Amino acid sequence: MLSLRLTSFTHLLSPPSSAAIARRSPLILRRRHHIRQRPLAASFSAQSATAETQDRVNNSKNRVPERVITPRSQDFNAWYLDVIANAELADYGPVRGTMVIRPYGYAIWEAIQEYLNVKFKETGHSNMYFPQFIPYSFIEKEASHVEGFSPELAVVTIGGGKELEEKLVVRPTSETIVNHMFTQWIHSYRDLPLMINQWANVTRWEMRTKPFVRTLEFLWQEGHTAHATPEEAENEAIQMIDIYTRFAYEQAAIPVITGRKSKVETFAGACKTYTIEAMMGDKKALQAGTSHNLGQNFARAFGTQFTDENGVREHVWQTSWAISTRFVGGIIMTHGDDAGLMLPPKLAPIQVVIVPIWKKDDEKAAVLNAALTVKDVLQKSGIKVKLDDSDQRTPGWKFNFWEMKGVPLRIEIGPRDVASGSVVISRRDIPGKQGKVFGISMEPSNLEAYVKDKLDEIQSSLLERAIAFRDSNIVDVTTYNDLKAAISQGKWARGPWSASDEDELKVKEETGATIRCFPFEQPQGNKTCLMTGNPAEEVAIFAKSY
Amino acid sequence: MLSLRLTSFTHLLSPPSSAAIARRSPLILRRRHHIRQRPLAASFSAQSATAETQDRVNNSKNRVPERVITPRSQDFNAWYLDVIANAELADYGPVRGTMVIRPYGYAIWEAIQEYLNVKFKETGHSNMYFPQFIPYSFIEKEASHVEGFSPELAVVTIGGGKELEEKLVVRPTSETIVNHMFTQWIHSYRDLPLMINQWANVTRWEMRTKPFVRTLEFLWQEGHTAHATPEEAENEAIQMIDIYTRFAYEQAAIPVITGRKSKVETFAGACKTYTIEAMMGDKKALQAGTSHNLGQNFARAFGTQFTDENGVREHVWQTSWAISTRFVGGIIMTHGDDAGLMLPPKLAPIQVVIVPIWKKDDEKAAVLNAALTVKDVLQKSGIKVKLDDSDQRTPGWKFNFWEMKGVPLRIEIGPRDVASGSVVISRRDIPGKQGKVFGISMEPSNLEAYVKDKLDEIQSSLLERAIAFRDSNIVDVTTYNDLKAAISQGKWARGPWSASDEDELKVKEETGATIRCFPFEQPQGNKTCLMTGNPAEEVAIFAKSY
Repeated sequence: MLSLRLTSFTHLLSPPSSAAIARRSPLILRRRHHIRQRPLAASFSAQSATAETQDRVNNSKNRVPERVITPRSQDFNAWYLDVIANAELADYGPVRGTMVIRPYGYAIWEAIQEYLNVKFKETGHSNMYFPQFIPYSFIEKEASHVEGFSPELAVVTIGGGKELEEKLVVRPTSETIVNHMFTQWIHSYRDLPLMINQWANVTRWEMRTKPFVRTLEFLWQEGHTAHATPEEAENEAIQMIDIYTRFAYEQAAIPVITGRKSKVETFAGACKTYTIEAMMGDKKALQAGTSHNLGQNFARAFGTQFTDENGVREHVWQTSWAISTRFVGGIIMTHGDDAGLMLPPKLAPIQVVIVPIWKKDDEKAAVLNAALTVKDVLQKSGIKVKLDDSDQRTPGWKFNFWEMKGVPLRIEIGPRDVASGSVVISRRDIPGKQGKVFGISMEPSNLEAYVKDKLDEIQSSLLERAIAFRDSNIVDVTTYNDLKAAISQGKWARGPWSASDEDELKVKEETGATIRCFPFEQPQGNKTCLMTGNPAEEVAIFAKSY
Repeated sequence: MLSLRLTSFTHLLSPPSSAAIARRSPLILRRRHHIRQRPLAASFSAQSATAETQDRVNNSKNRVPERVITPRSQDFNAWYLDVIANAELADYGPVRGTMVIRPYGYAIWEAIQEYLNVKFKETGHSNMYFPQFIPYSFIEKEASHVEGFSPELAVVTIGGGKELEEKLVVRPTSETIVNHMFTQWIHSYRDLPLMINQWANVTRWEMRTKPFVRTLEFLWQEGHTAHATPEEAENEAIQMIDIYTRFAYEQAAIPVITGRKSKVETFAGACKTYTIEAMMGDKKALQAGTSHNLGQNFARAFGTQFTDENGVREHVWQTSWAISTRFVGGIIMTHGDDAGLMLPPKLAPIQVVIVPIWKKDDEKAAVLNAALTVKDVLQKSGIKVKLDDSDQRTPGWKFNFWEMKGVPLRIEIGPRDVASGSVVISRRDIPGKQGKVFGISMEPSNLEAYVKDKLDEIQSSLLERAIAFRDSNIVDVTTYNDLKAAISQGKWARGPWSASDEDELKVKEETGATIRCFPFEQPQGNKTCLMTGNPAEEVAIFAKSY
């Protein structure tokens, strides 16, 4: 049965065909992953809003041949959808472009929430909740906001069986309703700063959808703050993009590049947008979080004023900032490999899986007993551990399954290990024998220290690997031709830029790449715009993106 | 300034008029509670869905005279709305019947979530997330479900600027979409039980709304489970109503009565509904949580089947269960008094407030220093503590303010206390001198033990008080005349019942009371139906309700 596990790594060397994988897949694995039987790669965007169509899609599962995960190098998009299906992270909702977040995927989101929620509170923000229905007229109050969002709105026109007098927008973001309320709560400088956050669902009627990355409805947190001075608002916007950056590096092991959006790419209604940009495994950029300095734009539109210390009425200065379930997609696409998901230990719902191994019935009790003891030891020290003691699956099946689910560490315990009071530990991030260590003592303090140490090592290793990948795929360019060459190789291009919005749009049209950001980290020295040859103050990063 | 605080307790003896209270209210208190300036008692149901109307309501704040909290005995509903506004628990959203949950109110909801979320996971449920848009056709699949919910639906008809082919319902509850997905995930008995929960917003187009108690959009958790046998489903439904019951008693100090709903009051689509019914301060009943045994109703409507151990296809047996932000309303209306909110320590966002007292500037440093030390001691031992060190408010103002916010314990520290190394501690639930103890040593272990002890005492005392109130307002009745008399006195009536649905509706028409539940705790002995004189197996509880 162990051979099963090893075969999964042959993908790394020469990707086998889907049919070959299907032949090797144990029957029980195929049954377990029934949801994979739908033609996932094709159906997400193609789904119609009618339940009938969806039923037809579902029925097709009886006809489509079974597969396991498409090799990443062969088809990145198919691989992504396969991982989501096989690891049971999400499924399609009945309405086109909607997503059901399944328990394992939701647990990753919960880990993200747990970390950020604490950081938001530490920095003085309170959670609260705004209604999701926004009068249509609100959206129209801020000119660039309505321009940006009106094509994406879901609109409620019927309530309680009656046509509504004013149509209601299902929130695509909450700046308008937040300002409507802030206007009532803010009177004097004593009411400032006002710093809140909400965890909520939002709706944007996207035409091209992809699970986690772009869905019709998604979950996020949106922070909203109001300040007495532009400096305070700017500091807040920077503070929050810094929190996102640290989160990405330290928790998700994603080495994002943090910077400022170009004017073209700035949020509809903001003065400045800061962003964290992550390089996915296919080298496309993912905008993984943003923080906006809104200036007085919404304050002016909604009359949000305060009386300052001199008795003068002024508009407040505001920020908003958000991270969404899209980030889960970023984790999958940064760390995953041909064997499936690979989760950074700090965000993994299961950090360690214990697989007991026995052949004869008389071995079973001792092995399970030892496994339970190990589980208790780790659980008590705060490690998220699962004991897979099912006797309906073979150890080889379990190895494959939990690797596919991205669990960072696996502990194997067999009769010989019990006899010697030790366990075997395998790392998800180092395949095969290289990642496997025999004879780790079961002695609690030793085992606990070893496991924590390894989890830290994996966390660091994932980040280092991602940094190396990122850095080897960013090309410094000085001319537009260089830029085009880099982009056509699928890489990111970094070069001095002081050209016009029109030039920026021309790059997009001609190469498919956009300015992801003007990174905070800038090279020293004089710069010459790669497009115009004029002096440039900053380099920009160009890339194709999700 | 201390006299200010004392006057607030005179309400307990003889409720003063609103005008009298307004006169006594310090200017600074009035300024602080600006949101109270809107005519809250009248506007919630009267709001129109248009922003324009809302703006008119808001503008009226410039004309309406300021008030503090209406005495509870004078007008329970006005008192309720005053508490919500003054304690900054919630505010009205711009759309009729919607509510903004403000940080202090949301923190109570977070405390509820924190407790229940752990309990759900301990009992084997996983969190996940279903889309909120449900194809209209789904709602129509279960006959009694559509009958119950269709009058309350909000419907999206426009998406991305286009009229939709199929209208989408904004979820009023998720049984239909859950079953649509369960049908795809459940294949054999090995996939069962399937036990999930989601924390989400839901929308019901209610015509008569009231903050927390009944709003157009509210937050809740909804659990959904599928089982292989009817016994398992029944056990699950009972287990979850038991968890709700324990939560109500032990965390919220609300002595709910747990029982089964009558057929008339059963959830649209369920076989059985279990409920926890709480008696509010005005003696009206609040349905505070429900757990439904859905039988195979939704499984049949959505074809949710599994293959049992003998290879036979069967429909699954299901449950669903929910508690919502309505529960926050229940806490307010159970424990609050004329001075405002009174929070059970286990759910209080702030359990202890420290008010430093100084007159001369040379006292200030020592007092603040001692206050900070006390804060640290309590915080380290896991107590939720706030130090109100603002020098813009007097101690008297602060006493009033934090009493109104329902903080269970107040610690006062003045120069004499600093000198003697002790503090003064006042209980929110015992007004005046009786609840005030002088000379509690600041010594960390002593102080920590004292405060924890007092918080436990308050928690128990709130529950005991609520039990006494409940029991003195339930009348055992044997005839319909008795029942009518009890209801007309505003009490709950408990009596044997085996009459028809028509008789039940007649009671409602003639008295305004409904069967709240057939309580699990039943008296011994033979029973005779209060309406028909026929034998009855159970007593039912009748009451007017929210």
